[in-house]
Formats: sequence, structure tokens, C-alpha cells
Amino acid sequence: MASSTTPAAGKAPPALLDLTIDNITPNTVRINSQSSDARLTYLMARLVSHLHDFARETRLSSDEWMAAIGFLIGCGQISNDVRNEFILLSDVLGLSLLVDNINHPKPPLGTEGSVLGPFHTHDAPTLPNGSSMTSDPEGEPMLAICTVKDTHGNPVAGVKIDIWETDSSGHYDVQHADRGDPSERCVMESDEQGRFWFKAIKPVPYPIPHDGPVGKLLQMLSRHCWRPAHVHFMFGKQGWDQLVTALYLRGDPYETSDAVFGVKQSLIIDLGKVDKTTAEAYGVAEGAWLLKHDFVLTTQEETEKLRDQLAVDALRKLGLRLKLVDHLPVPDLD
Amino acid sequence: MASSTTPAAGKAPPALLDLTIDNITPNTVRINSQSSDARLTYLMARLVSHLHDFARETRLSSDEWMAAIGFLIGCGQISNDVRNEFILLSDVLGLSLLVDNINHPKPPLGTEGSVLGPFHTHDAPTLPNGSSMTSDPEGEPMLAICTVKDTHGNPVAGVKIDIWETDSSGHYDVQHADRGDPSERCVMESDEQGRFWFKAIKPVPYPIPHDGPVGKLLQMLSRHCWRPAHVHFMFGKQGWDQLVTALYLRGDPYETSDAVFGVKQSLIIDLGKVDKTTAEAYGVAEGAWLLKHDFVLTTQEETEKLRDQLAVDALRKLGLRLKLVDHLPVPDLD
Repeated sequence: MASSTTPAAGKAPPALLDLTIDNITPNTVRINSQSSDARLTYLMARLVSHLHDFARETRLSSDEWMAAIGFLIGCGQISNDVRNEFILLSDVLGLSLLVDNINHPKPPLGTEGSVLGPFHTHDAPTLPNGSSMTSDPEGEPMLAICTVKDTHGNPVAGVKIDIWETDSSGHYDVQHADRGDPSERCVMESDEQGRFWFKAIKPVPYPIPHDGPVGKLLQMLSRHCWRPAHVHFMFGKQGWDQLVTALYLRGDPYETSDAVFGVKQSLIIDLGKVDKTTAEAYGVAEGAWLLKHDFVLTTQEETEKLRDQLAVDALRKLGLRLKLVDHLPVPDLD
Repeated sequence: MASSTTPAAGKAPPALLDLTIDNITPNTVRINSQSSDARLTYLMARLVSHLHDFARETRLSSDEWMAAIGFLIGCGQISNDVRNEFILLSDVLGLSLLVDNINHPKPPLGTEGSVLGPFHTHDAPTLPNGSSMTSDPEGEPMLAICTVKDTHGNPVAGVKIDIWETDSSGHYDVQHADRGDPSERCVMESDEQGRFWFKAIKPVPYPIPHDGPVGKLLQMLSRHCWRPAHVHFMFGKQGWDQLVTALYLRGDPYETSDAVFGVKQSLIIDLGKVDKTTAEAYGVAEGAWLLKHDFVLTTQEETEKLRDQLAVDALRKLGLRLKLVDHLPVPDLD
């Protein structure tokens, strides 16, 4: 019985006995509060309190509990290198949107964020400006001409931009069992004028993967599983707040019922058509779809300051006595 | 795009746009409230509210969110037919205890419940009274002589009793990679006098499986992973409330720090020693350990009545306007 898992000698854990509906919460919080990590202690205390309150408020039945256990197991087991059912669950429950908004608040001039979703990969090819990121002959050709600027209107050069969308059938490359090279995804870099441009296809609405536990849940909830047509963008550069966003096409049938809550009015765009001059300049066919957009990044410093301020305001409003340590709330015991 | 996943014609989902930290919760609840299942709607509303409140109160960081996603994936992927990491997680967070107490309240005379744990199986052999359920020559022999009665002291015959414990090394049979036939587990039936008796081994304390995500969590929390020595019992008979319980040995080093919160004073027992007469009567060695216990079952009807009453009282105390439908709370909209 002497083992590394035996508690440290000299420090007995709190005594627990005869736990009931009414005393289980403070006792669980107590036994979870033995580490020196104040942030972990706080996270666990709030997690356990909410979990227990949920069970008490719903008088959760044993059958419902077992169904939830089975649901969670199913989410884990359907996940793999290119599918993450728990991110999908977080998306359809609005948690992803919430966490993104908490962590990446935007000042009035900054481009708003949107959900990352489960289909970003790390194997997209880095392509020079003007390249085509599509290999789908069925897609409607679309030229994208974009800029990246700061909140003062100055171009930001050298930003790595991950771009990804589905093919014309509404599937990301990773959803095809016979996926070869990455397709409908690339990484570009903004030039000295903050510009980047590429050839893609007009995005189409598509259902999120609904052959797993999350799809079944949506069906039980009488919710559809569609996302409106969009192109994903992720902007990264040292010193700048990472921007995860997407542009949505106006008039999409799912514009106001995105299954993962990603649409913001400021991210809805109208596509134009490529005119003769542009067609010649960019080497595309006249009359192809044209996406033009100016993205605005915020610095890491201004975002951090804004995030801290919003956190302090929100926690005060919630009546919680907390302080920020490394920008994250912990109980203020001083 | 016409597909079975398209929403039913004629009933548009609620319009969602520009979701923020402040409006995401009511909107998620709204879109989750389209089914005709009032219980499901209520469960989802409370789940989403608590999940979002948790993120808001902690200002959950993107890294923490991603760590949680990875943790959940890990729990799903280490689970298999004989290992359920999510039940283990529920156990160490006190949720299993809570759900059991909510669903199986006991009147003063009924035997208290204890956590089921993840090691009950459905392949244990049904053995006649007096049989041995152990195949472990290293264990210290223990004779168990028990009765099952009702709250009036009348014997209850024909109760199926699942009994399981670890071997002397502190492992359930299913934890051995080379598991053959079930061992240290059986199903017995109470006789006309409500008696059942069997040969087993003296239980030993043991660590819950700590080579997975739950074990890592306990380590991060500076919690040990031990359970005090115990034998599991599960009683089932038509018309009687299923009793899942366990008996714990007094004086165990983990008596007041069970990693899964299962110990109740009324379930702590002292082992005796088998005397000569008993040894001869039951065919065991004199001086072997002796476990004697009288279990008291409650009827399904009295438990259901008690559960409903406790639910109504608790919900009133919480200030929630709910009614019970099929014994489960839903909003009272009348």
C-alpha cells in the first residue's frame, strides 16, 4: 500500500463521511482545494457547484445520468485526428462563441471574431498571393482580394492567414474518407501593403457532422444542423491578438439560424462580380465571384487590457470578489 | 439541399444574430426549446445556463477550454466495455453520490445506498447460497451471513443480490488484461427466511484506476485515489426499490477520505471471527473472518412517494416553479 499515490505524509485530507444531497457540494469543493494552484481550485469549485446545482434543480434521474454518461463516451469514441465531437458539442451549446468573446473582445473598429469550428487543420500549404486554394472543378470560381490593417488604418504586413472552406458539396477535405492532399485550405501572408489575395470557390451552406451523438442531440431538440455559407479566416502575428473569424454570404437561408451561433452582422458580406480589368490583373475569368474585405487586427496589448477591464467589470456585476492573476480570476482572499 | 436534416417546413427557428457574452444564454435556451419534450427542454435550459455561467464566472480562457476538450476526449477514448472513465469522473466529482441520493432516498429504517462505481458487470455467475465467489488463494477467507428484510422486519425472499469485490491485490477481475471467467463476483438469491450467505475474501483498500485522465486530475488536485476496503451489494426484486450499496470495514486508513465519497457511518461494519459451531455449519475454517449484516429494503412505492415529496420540498426551497410529470420536474406553465 505504500505507493506514490498515497497522500503526502503529514497533511491529512479533510474528513468526509455521510455525504448527502445537502452537504456533498461544500465537501467536494473542500477536498478539491488542496493544491497550491489557486486558479485550478477556483475552476473546480465553480464546476462542481454548477454540476451539483444542475442535478439538484432537475432532480436528475439515474436513467438521465446514465444517458449523459453514454452520450459523453460516444462523443469521445467518434472523435479522431480530424474530428472533434466535443468541440462540435461546445459549438452547438453556444460555449465556443462565449469563450471566444470572453478571450478576444474587440474594440469598436476591430473585426469581430467567429467560431473556429472543428475543421481547421495544421497541414494546409503556405501559398503565395494570387494562388488558388481549390481543387474543386464543381465549385463556382471566386476571387478574394483582402487587406489586413490596424485600428488606425495602417497596413499590417507579414500576417499569417489561415483560410479554409468546404468544397462545393459542403464538405471539408478531412470529411472525405479518401482525403489526399489538403484542399480548400491554405496559409497566406499579407504583403507590405497589408494585402492578400487568392482564388477559391463561392462557399455553400452545409450541415455540421450529424452522424454522431451531437447530431442525434440536435435532432432530439428539433434543431437543424446547417451552417450558412462562409469562409474561415485566422490571422496570426507576434504582438497581435489572434483573430479567428469568418465571412458569411448575405441572404443565405441559414443566415439567422447558424447551428453554431457564428454569424455577426458585421461579418455578412455581399459578393460582387469580377470586371474585365480585375480579371486581367488577377488572371481569372471575367464575371467570376468577387469577395473584397478589409480585416482590422488589434494588438495583443490592447486586447489584453480590454479583456482584463471587461472581466473586472463583469465579475463586479456578478458580485464576485475576485482578483486577476495572470489575467485570470481567482478568489481575492486578502 | 433538400434533406431530412432541413427544418420542418412552416416552422421557422428563432432568429439568432450578433450573439454576445450577455445574450448567448437566452438565445441558446430559445433554440433548444423547440421540441415537444418538456423534460428535455428543461434539462437543456438548466445545462446551458450553468455551462455559460461557469464560463462567465471564471472568464474561462481559450487554453483552459481546449484543455477541457482534450480531457473529455481522453475520457472517452480510454473507456471500453469494462472501463468507464466518465462514471469514474462522476464518482470523484461527487455527482454519482448526489444522483443516487436524489433517486433512492431511504426512510430512517432502510439500508443507505452507496456508489455503484464502474466495476459492476452483467456476467457474474448465479451461485447457490453457501458458494464461494472467490478464486483468489492469496485472500484472507471471509464468510458472509446476511439477511434481507423490509422496514417492518419481515424477510424478503427471492431477492437477486449482485455481490462484487476486488481480489487481494486490490483489482477487480475486469482490470486484469488476461481476465478469464468472472471472479470475486456473483449473484445470489435470498431464501424464504430472507437469508443469503457466501464465501469471499476480506476486502482490501485499493486505488481507483489512476492511469487515465481522471487519475491525472486527482493528482493535479493533490487528491489521493484510494477507496477504503468494501464489498459491493446490489439488491433487485420486482416491486422493491433497487438498493445499490456497500459495506465498509471500520478502521480503514481511507475511512474518511474515500475518493468517491461512498462511506456512510451506517455502512461501516466490524468483522468478527468464525467460531467452531459456525465453521462446522458453513463448511469454513474456524477463525476465518465473519461478516454479518442485515439489509433493509424499501418498496418501490414508498421510495417513489418519498422521492417525489423530497423533490417538491427541495424545488420549493430553491424557489423554482416546477411540477412533477412522471416523477420528474418540468416548468409549471399553467
